[in-house]
Order: sequence, then C-alpha cells, then structure tokens
Amino acid sequence: MLNIKNNILLLKKKPINIKNKVKTIIKDIKIYGEFALLYYIKFIDGIDIKSIKELIINRKTMKSSYNKISNKKKKILKEIYLRLKRYHFHNYVNSWQINNNIDIIYGQKINNIEKICIYVPGGNTIYPSSIYMNCIPSLIYRPNFICMVSPIKNGVISNTILSISYLNKINKIIFSGGVHTLSCVVFGTRNIIKVDKLTGPGNYYITKAKKIFFGSVGIDMLAGPSELIILCDGFIHPNVISYDFFSQLEHDINASCCLFTNNKKYLNLLYTKIYKLLLFQKNKKIIFKSLKNSILLFNKINNLLEIINFLAPEHLMICIKNSNKVVKKIKNCGAIFISYKTTETYGDYVIGPSHVIPTNSTSKYFSSLNIYDFCKKIGIIKIYNNKYCKILSSFFSKIEKFFSHSFSSIIRK
Amino acid sequence: MLNIKNNILLLKKKPINIKNKVKTIIKDIKIYGEFALLYYIKFIDGIDIKSIKELIINRKTMKSSYNKISNKKKKILKEIYLRLKRYHFHNYVNSWQINNNIDIIYGQKINNIEKICIYVPGGNTIYPSSIYMNCIPSLIYRPNFICMVSPIKNGVISNTILSISYLNKINKIIFSGGVHTLSCVVFGTRNIIKVDKLTGPGNYYITKAKKIFFGSVGIDMLAGPSELIILCDGFIHPNVISYDFFSQLEHDINASCCLFTNNKKYLNLLYTKIYKLLLFQKNKKIIFKSLKNSILLFNKINNLLEIINFLAPEHLMICIKNSNKVVKKIKNCGAIFISYKTTETYGDYVIGPSHVIPTNSTSKYFSSLNIYDFCKKIGIIKIYNNKYCKILSSFFSKIEKFFSHSFSSIIRK
Repeated sequence: MLNIKNNILLLKKKPINIKNKVKTIIKDIKIYGEFALLYYIKFIDGIDIKSIKELIINRKTMKSSYNKISNKKKKILKEIYLRLKRYHFHNYVNSWQINNNIDIIYGQKINNIEKICIYVPGGNTIYPSSIYMNCIPSLIYRPNFICMVSPIKNGVISNTILSISYLNKINKIIFSGGVHTLSCVVFGTRNIIKVDKLTGPGNYYITKAKKIFFGSVGIDMLAGPSELIILCDGFIHPNVISYDFFSQLEHDINASCCLFTNNKKYLNLLYTKIYKLLLFQKNKKIIFKSLKNSILLFNKINNLLEIINFLAPEHLMICIKNSNKVVKKIKNCGAIFISYKTTETYGDYVIGPSHVIPTNSTSKYFSSLNIYDFCKKIGIIKIYNNKYCKILSSFFSKIEKFFSHSFSSIIRK
Repeated sequence: MLNIKNNILLLKKKPINIKNKVKTIIKDIKIYGEFALLYYIKFIDGIDIKSIKELIINRKTMKSSYNKISNKKKKILKEIYLRLKRYHFHNYVNSWQINNNIDIIYGQKINNIEKICIYVPGGNTIYPSSIYMNCIPSLIYRPNFICMVSPIKNGVISNTILSISYLNKINKIIFSGGVHTLSCVVFGTRNIIKVDKLTGPGNYYITKAKKIFFGSVGIDMLAGPSELIILCDGFIHPNVISYDFFSQLEHDINASCCLFTNNKKYLNLLYTKIYKLLLFQKNKKIIFKSLKNSILLFNKINNLLEIINFLAPEHLMICIKNSNKVVKKIKNCGAIFISYKTTETYGDYVIGPSHVIPTNSTSKYFSSLNIYDFCKKIGIIKIYNNKYCKILSSFFSKIEKFFSHSFSSIIRK
C-alpha cells in the first residue's frame, strides 16, 4: 500500500521544471498566437509548416473518408457508437419548472456547453477508443462545436480514425498535440476557435497545462497514470487474472495493477504465473517496467475494502462470490467491473461508461467523464406573490447589513 | 519556522504579488502544520491563541445555541431551510442499473462526497445566507462530515449564526478564515480533518488558493466579484430598478450592475434616479465606488441578448413583456430572475437555487452550486455473455496495439 503511494509521490516529484516550461509555452501562445504555435510545432514536434491550416481537417474530409471504408467496418463503428450512447442517455435529465401554487415559479434550465475541445493522446497511433469515450458523453446535450486535438508523429492518418471522428460529430481536427496546440484552443487564434471546455487525459505536460487553464476554460479532471485493483477470492484461474495484469500494465510504464486477495495460496500462484506468461506478451518491455508499480496484497476482505476506499483507485475489478455485498461497501472508486467475465478491457472500449476516469485518489471527489460535464444548470426564479419573501429577506438583510437588499424587496408591491 | 517569519516580513512590505503570498502560506502550512497556522492567525488576523481548538466549535455548542433562540426565529430559520431544500431535491437522481437482456448489466452508482468544507466569507459579520446556500445543496446526498471555515474579526458569534449552522448539519466550525485556515482543511493537521471538497466564494486570495488546491481536493468554481445585468424595456418604475442597482452594488466595491434596455428615455430617467436616490442609501460609500463598474446600454433586444450570451453574467434580471421568448434565447448566464416582482435579493436569500454562482463569464461552463457538486458517479459493469464484446474489443486492440487487451477478453470463456 505504501508502495503505491510512494510511486505516485515519486512520479509527482520528478518533473520539477515541467511547470515552468508549460508556463512559458502558454505565455508565448497568449502573446504571439499562431506565430508561436508554428515555432513550437517546428522545434518540439519537428514539423515544418507554413500555416496551421495544413494540420486542420474539417468535416468534409472526414465524410469522404467515412465513405471509403467497408460496410463491415461501418457496422462495427456504428455498433460501438450506439452502445456507448445508449449508456449515457440513461443519465439524461431535462430542464424543469415548478409552480408551488403559493408564491413562486422556479426551475432549472439546462443548456449545453457550446464549444468543446477533446484531447486525444497519441504518438505513433491515435487511440480511436479515446475519441469515442470523450465525444459520446458530450453528444447527449448536443454541443454546437467539437474540436479534437491530437498529436500524430508519423503523419499517416487512417481512414478509420477520420471515420470515427465523423461518426462522433467532430467539427474540426487539429493534428498537432502538446501544450502549444491546447493553448491555442483555450485562448483562440486566427484559425483556431476558442472553446469553453477541455476534456481528455494527457501526459504530465498536458495535465499541468490543464490546471493552469482551469478557470479560463472548464476542464474535466486532472488525470494521471492508469490504475487497477483486482479484488479476488481465488476462484478464477490465475491465467485469466495474469492477462488482466498485462492488459492494464501495457498502457504505459507508469500504469499500475494490484491484486487484493484473502487467499494466500492464490497470491503465490498468481505471482509465478505472471512471470511465466510475461515473456509471451508482445508489449513485454512496457509491462516489465510498469510491473514495478504492482502489489499483491493478502488480507481479510473487510480490511481490503477499507484500503480500497482509502486509495480510491481508477478501476476496480471484483471477482468474488457475493459481489453485491462488496459493491455496496465501495465508496471511492472510478469504475467497477463485476464477475469473472468482465475484463477491464471491455470498459476501456465498448460497454458504456467513459474510460476517462479520475486517478490518483481523486475519485473521492471527481467522477468519470459523463454527460453532466457537458451541460450547465441555470436557476430560474419568477415570483408572483412576494409577501413571505419580503419577511424572510428582511431577516437576512438586517443581519448582513445589506440594507438596500431589504428596500429592493419592500419597494415591490 | 524561520521561513515563515521571513515571508511575513515580506508580506508587510507589500511588493510581492498575491499569488506568491498565497503559495508561501500554503507551503508553510504543508510543512509546519498547525504551528504555521497559529503563527499566521497571530500575524495576519491579530489573534493570539495557544491551540486552534480555541477557534473550533462542535455540534454540541451549536445545539445549545439553537435551544436558546426564540421560537419565532426558529420558525423563520426552518422555513428558509425547507424552502431551499425543496428546490434542490427536484434535482435528485438515484443510482441505476439496467439489464439489456442480451449481454450486459450496467449502471451508475451515485455516492456522496464524504467530507466537505464550506467557506463562508466574513469579517465584521458572517453571512448567514452563505451558510444556507453552501450547505443545502450538499445535504441532499448526505455527506459524512461538513466543516465550515469562516473568519470573524470581532470575536462575537451570535446565537443565530450557530443555530443556522446547527440546522444545516455542520459538524465543525473553524472561526478563522484566510488561506492559512483553508490550507489546513485541504491537507489535514492534528486537530483539523482533511476534506475531499471545498466550496464557497472568497476574496482574491481565497480564489487563488482554490486554484492551487484544485486536484488536491475538489473545488466548486473560481468565483469573482458579483455581477448583475438587468434587461428592461422600461415599463417598470425607475425607482424599483434603482434599488436593484443599490442592492447589487452594496455587496462590495468590485460588484457590478448594468442596465440593458431598448428604451432610450428610460435609460436617461434611470440615470438621474440612481444619483438622486443614492444619497439616501446606508451603504452609499460602497455603492458610490462600485457604481464605476456600471454600464447603462441602449440597443435592440436581439443585440442585447447576443451581448448577454457573450458576457455570460452571474445574475440576469428580465423585466420585459414576452419574457418567455427571451429566456429561451439565453444561453450563458448563472441565474435568471423573471418579472417585476422578482428582485435579485430573493435569489440571494430565500428562493432555492444557490447564490454561489459562476462569475466573470465562467457561466459558459460552470453551473451554480448544485447537488451534483456533492456526489460522484461510478460506472458499474457486469457482463454475462461476452461474445460481441470480444469482437469489438479485438477491433480496437489491434489498432491501438494493445495486444494483451485482446487476450484478456479471449481467455474468458
């Protein structure tokens, strides 16, 4: 347990001068706009362009890419789209208004957030699942404009990526990543529209930048490396859980995966299995590095649950008989996967809840990306008999010494 | 400790900017805990105490204060409590779970945020309305612990304040404000419990600190000085609108109030009225200063609406025939007050929606404080037939080169 915390702390301590770098980039973009952007694209990304327009793709191009892909692929892409959207639609709430028949009509108007930017981390490839998982929750309240920002190093953008962006109603893609591009989206430049909200995970630089942007735009959360805790009583074949370890640990070298069990034998069994099977994994280099963040822990279930609620992990897999009882006791956690058949992979890709989930114990107060991140609630008040309001208001205004408050209610007949 | 003393000297010399001051205080509290707190309470607030316990009040004291107040007052306090709670309860959503009868059970578990701190700005007096407006939305999902942090200079705390705190289910009150006290609540010290979320407005220092805290705890929003735009076609007596100006402008010298009208005569009428009536206001000194932030604007209604949506004001009063049509066109705004009888004062005090509302154009992406600020949503997934999930997952894992992801689904029968 301590080990996890230490790892997280170490990770936090490493990038000392990152903050200053990020600040400089943001400042430059704020002052020099696209000139600075082109400069940074050249010197950070190594791409020499004359205008940012060269890296922007609009819906027309996406549509023509979508028309090029096979019908079979279209079917798969649509199926995923519909499955994810169905989940989020269950959370839909509408504006409401109520007349209390005594003195007040009040309510809540729910408006979309108009302009949204999703950040999709990339590099050698772009993660299509991240496009879905960022966009779908936003689509329920129909934003006016979605911009996707994503770095691409090889310069090759597949039709699949463009088709998925088309399906997810993205209006513009900027194929350039990093703090420099995000800053343009936050402050607006000649060719890049200023947005209202920014979502999606990124590396340390991006996360630092998001914290600085907070307040200039809305942001979803400050996410760090991925985490998984598997709570297991040992009735599942260790091969299966080993693969859950590998699939979690191959995300990146900072990812972590832990087994919490009340079965000591199982713990030993899994330990040997993991090292045996590790050699056959294609991403074994990454897994080997991230394995250092892993812990196998043995204790009573109730104690383990207490630790889980303290740690508030991003993902929690519960492979236990009587899982319902356990789920009720979970207080802090990003997403829960129940039973033998539910691998975290499904949650990453196709089921419903967004895979943009709070990490690093922040699920104590952040939620995974959901439709409420893309709307705002406006209180509405209309009074038709203000007798009682006058009395109550004057009570407060006396204590607070806001005397004109009282008069502004008294003067109304 | 030397560190602190040096910094205090610097604080007295002025030229350091706010952000650095705030950073220094937070750093000191993080390192020296309550020692630093006592130091800052002495040198910033001028109060010499031996232990922070002297400034902490528990529920027992609050209860005995509540028992001392008159029944008439109790009735008023309860009436306000019930009115406000009734409004927020309309937003209540529950956890849900759905079986799609094909392959998945999925749902969303809604948990409370366990420990909450509300900041109630004060000074000569504490604003009782702020206690209500911060607490009530939080009470719907029943937090385990509510701590109130509030500065009090005169050292006299009325029974009314303690009674209101008691009614609002506050567990602990720390009668000490500022960044130093908030830092203790965020990081936890010997006698002060670490919280998960921090809400409530404050001065520049508090707002700067909240931005730094964001990520270590959840925060509601970054709020600045209060704003009001009155959209009026001139059928209301200018005396009434003048008092709305005064009640808005007496908040503090940075508050602003604007009139947007399509009636040029009315604009001139109001202008003279305001200066005529200003002299009779008890808080005229503050109002006179904040009046410099005011604008009276004449234009067509449609143009004015466009400006309102661009500015995204905190409060919007609509005193116009056909107000329904206008309300539909409002996209960005914190709270809307409709018709002649609805003064903003009522919204500040007794109606329902929280008066903790986003300012400074941030209502484009922030909402006023509401019950969703005090809960978190956890996605739950359980799969009982994973045939289709396997196909879709392998599609993604190929593109994303996460090969173990694919295996972790294939290995499950």
